Amino acid sequence: MKTTDLAAVLEQLRQRNPLILSLTNTVVQPITANMLLAVGAAPVMLNDAEETEQLLRTCANGLLINVGTLSRPQAEQMRRAVDAAHAARIPWVLDPVAVGLLSFRTEFCRELLALHPTLIRGNASEIMALAGEAAGGRGTDTTEESAAAVHAALQLARQFGSTVLVTGAVDYVTDGARVAALGNGHPLMTRVTGVGCAMGALAAACVAAAPDAFTGAAACAALIGIAGERAAARCPRPGSFAAALLDELDAITPADMVHHTRFAG
Amino acid sequence: MKTTDLAAVLEQLRQRNPLILSLTNTVVQPITANMLLAVGAAPVMLNDAEETEQLLRTCANGLLINVGTLSRPQAEQMRRAVDAAHAARIPWVLDPVAVGLLSFRTEFCRELLALHPTLIRGNASEIMALAGEAAGGRGTDTTEESAAAVHAALQLARQFGSTVLVTGAVDYVTDGARVAALGNGHPLMTRVTGVGCAMGALAAACVAAAPDAFTGAAACAALIGIAGERAAARCPRPGSFAAALLDELDAITPADMVHHTRFAG
Amino acid sequence: MKTTDLAAVLEQLRQRNPLILSLTNTVVQPITANMLLAVGAAPVMLNDAEETEQLLRTCANGLLINVGTLSRPQAEQMRRAVDAAHAARIPWVLDPVAVGLLSFRTEFCRELLALHPTLIRGNASEIMALAGEAAGGRGTDTTEESAAAVHAALQLARQFGSTVLVTGAVDYVTDGARVAALGNGHPLMTRVTGVGCAMGALAAACVAAAPDAFTGAAACAALIGIAGERAAARCPRPGSFAAALLDELDAITPADMVHHTRFAG
Repeated sequence: MKTTDLAAVLEQLRQRNPLILSLTNTVVQPITANMLLAVGAAPVMLNDAEETEQLLRTCANGLLINVGTLSRPQAEQMRRAVDAAHAARIPWVLDPVAVGLLSFRTEFCRELLALHPTLIRGNASEIMALAGEAAGGRGTDTTEESAAAVHAALQLARQFGSTVLVTGAVDYVTDGARVAALGNGHPLMTRVTGVGCAMGALAAACVAAAPDAFTGAAACAALIGIAGERAAARCPRPGSFAAALLDELDAITPADMVHHTRFAG
Repeated sequence: MKTTDLAAVLEQLRQRNPLILSLTNTVVQPITANMLLAVGAAPVMLNDAEETEQLLRTCANGLLINVGTLSRPQAEQMRRAVDAAHAARIPWVLDPVAVGLLSFRTEFCRELLALHPTLIRGNASEIMALAGEAAGGRGTDTTEESAAAVHAALQLARQFGSTVLVTGAVDYVTDGARVAALGNGHPLMTRVTGVGCAMGALAAACVAAAPDAFTGAAACAALIGIAGERAAARCPRPGSFAAALLDELDAITPADMVHHTRFAG
Repeated sequence: MKTTDLAAVLEQLRQRNPLILSLTNTVVQPITANMLLAVGAAPVMLNDAEETEQLLRTCANGLLINVGTLSRPQAEQMRRAVDAAHAARIPWVLDPVAVGLLSFRTEFCRELLALHPTLIRGNASEIMALAGEAAGGRGTDTTEESAAAVHAALQLARQFGSTVLVTGAVDYVTDGARVAALGNGHPLMTRVTGVGCAMGALAAACVAAAPDAFTGAAACAALIGIAGERAAARCPRPGSFAAALLDELDAITPADMVHHTRFAG
């Protein structure tokens, strides 16, 4: 993988302005929509299952399923969304927030896993729990380094035909054959609610603009990581950092991605 | 219409501190409440239909209905809210987000339209779709210039006795007899989620403080447009712009509205 | 009470990183999570009652119940949460938003009151309404000075065995025996939606880190008040103030609390 491949994803994303439907938790809806807008995508969120199906049949380019504040009616909306995304050949991302910790979402994520997500995004605890390797973290916190989850990510990728993005100090992407490790980012990104969850939505946008999910997921990790580093350099506290992160996602260019993407490991 | 009439609306709004009940989509609730607070109004949001009716009977001064993340229970809450607003003679604003694109909300907006909203706020695609002229945009995006929707706005105003505010690079207001065109604003306002939706809530506050809905809607367009221009001049990127917009809504004075309102066309 | 006792709460909070489950209104979820993260706690929010019980049985350290956008299903989730918190001996905070104004939540808050909240946080109107002394304010606004509610706070504390935090220009804390008055804070804190509501969540975090609820509540009032003063000194308008408040909650040290806490009255 070359940095020019990742830069091309950003360029395509801004040209195509993909419409990303995020079925996500209520806590992170504003930052999810704002991060999509900042980077050049178009956000939409819905509560009604029929409207969800109709949008996916007509004009959506990507779908995020994030189970952070899952309810029974939302689970049903999500099932119908995944079916509609499959029918319309739209890429979809599963973000299994806190899987392994809480039974309802754990069973639901296993059910969705069997429907072959285009991309799975999670922290190390979540990816390991999803693969049956560990019991999961505490809420959205991970108790593991991302490297510890590479084995689980490979297993998930091979078993379900999904690309997997493990986020952490180093982000790992695998499609079951290749593994890429990206080293951009900053710890402040975990001190603002929703940056991780919004990354799932941005990953859907990047995959919609990329030649394949592996390249799209890697571009997403580089994009947010570089923007996060730049925002933290200017604003070392979380409130102003959150605004600066949006500013940097707006400002970042494909040339920035060519020059500042750091492969790790 | 004179700029002093618009300035008087802001002055009255700050004196009266109207309580605005926003039944709106979950994505934009925080920015809606914060824009109301910044300009000098008082926000309230509710989920329960009985509480909604009780608040409208007792102390609300304006009501916003925004269908962005409409659900079946919320539609029922909204129906009861509109009935209660009529009974209490409280002005109400309909924001028909993405009408024409999705069937459930399109039927629901037509149903509400027949109840004669005090004000309808939408982008060109939404106003044209509501009037039956076009199929609507893509989510919250408009595919039309606002001028293209003036005919539809006049038709809606005349048929339903509503004032109509078409927002875009130029904002048009009509009560079916008069048309005002206002040229303030900045493209960054479309790069922050909820600025357009919050404009519906601010329009409810302005109408509650104005001698009539036409003057109130025009004051709202000028107010947000001028604040947006000033915020963009200081903060040209979307994250810091969002905070600056709230600062400018807090700072703007009636004298600013007299001197900086630009009538267009 | 000494300022070193309050400083020790902040120190403990940062060491223990308590996990706070906030069942709160949808408007303030992002700022609630961000204020918890800024100060050093870990936020989690859930919609499903079974998941709520499971989290409280396994890893939550504190619980907030805020009725701002109460619905019938959420009331049921909250009942089960309070039972689970009692069973697990986890401190819980009741924030009776707009109690006295709307019947559904007023009855529900009375029901929860009988379950002996560890802490009750409200403005003067809410505390007086909860004690049966007055009809309540207008939405989240208080119509009374906080001193007027000290009698009601003492009565609630004695009758229900709860600690009570009355917030306003002066914040009062009582456990029925002692009363502490704290004078930190800034009026801008009422111009940003959710600062008051998030204070309930921070109070849960402080109580989880304190030797008792009285000390925890006082530490919370001092902590937010000092951060608010510092943020307002740098950023006198509400949009930039909101970001600065998070920055100051991140920056504040136990030594700051020792030197800048102001006892009032």
